[in-house]
Amino acid sequence: MNRYIISALVSNRSGVLTRVAALFSRRGYNIESLCACKTEDDDLARMTIVLNGDEYVLGQMMKQMDKLIDVKKIIQVEEDAVCRELLLVKIKTDAKTRTQVIEISQIFRANVVDVSPEATVLELTGKPVKLDGFITMLMPYGIIELARTGVTAIARGGSCIKDAADYKEQI
Amino acid sequence: MNRYIISALVSNRSGVLTRVAALFSRRGYNIESLCACKTEDDDLARMTIVLNGDEYVLGQMMKQMDKLIDVKKIIQVEEDAVCRELLLVKIKTDAKTRTQVIEISQIFRANVVDVSPEATVLELTGKPVKLDGFITMLMPYGIIELARTGVTAIARGGSCIKDAADYKEQI
Repeated sequence: MNRYIISALVSNRSGVLTRVAALFSRRGYNIESLCACKTEDDDLARMTIVLNGDEYVLGQMMKQMDKLIDVKKIIQVEEDAVCRELLLVKIKTDAKTRTQVIEISQIFRANVVDVSPEATVLELTGKPVKLDGFITMLMPYGIIELARTGVTAIARGGSCIKDAADYKEQI
Repeated sequence: MNRYIISALVSNRSGVLTRVAALFSRRGYNIESLCACKTEDDDLARMTIVLNGDEYVLGQMMKQMDKLIDVKKIIQVEEDAVCRELLLVKIKTDAKTRTQVIEISQIFRANVVDVSPEATVLELTGKPVKLDGFITMLMPYGIIELARTGVTAIARGGSCIKDAADYKEQI
């Protein structure tokens, strides 16, 4: 089982998300994370999907998505791309444990966004593996609540997905 | 038209996203952004949906989502909650404009994550309105590519969505 990241530019209109999600659920594939948001062009939204599976699953889903009229461009995000995810986590803390939690967040370069007598809210940005490590460190203190955005990605260098005319050959 | 944020804890399995997305598309409501990712509990995922509409649309969608078996808890995120979004943006830059772009990113406290002779990749975390302002400032230089995660949110203080037994009375 590998982890693949698919990035797609889609029409920004009602129903597109349903059609894309249906492609995965019809085959029983579970999406590890998905984020969808508008782009600088109001007519387009970008979906970033993290998929667990093998090469076959990846190829099949990319082909199926590419067939949808609303999917304008689709690409598999390469390993050297900039992949980032955002985590918000609320940890149970009292006067004693707060110092320890803040020390851990300094190591990971997380930000403290809210403090109350019984809890601390932290914000961390990074690769999923960094976020996983941070969560593991905080587990013993007690996680009250946790929210992750899922991965979003952008290619390095001057190129972009929109210019990749040969994206179909990748699948 | 207002902007509402819905946060839901759902079963982490195939098909849930399709069912939730279908509720919106069946009525022709467009989701402004959606992010879905697993939580600290492997059986649960969290979906954060930003919805444009009025009180009626919000109430209807919350009731409909609440009816789904896979939706465990649902809440409207209050205005004072911690709302964060992550932006990755690739800007066209040469030796001359790079300094200006980096200056703007320092004002917004954005990070430079990649530089190449013809482009700069920036990362910014914050409220959607801060991200919009940043994008507006960068527009004149030429946006090559842009990826946003969509909003994720967490309540302030020690409480959490999981404990909110009275969430149904909000709708």
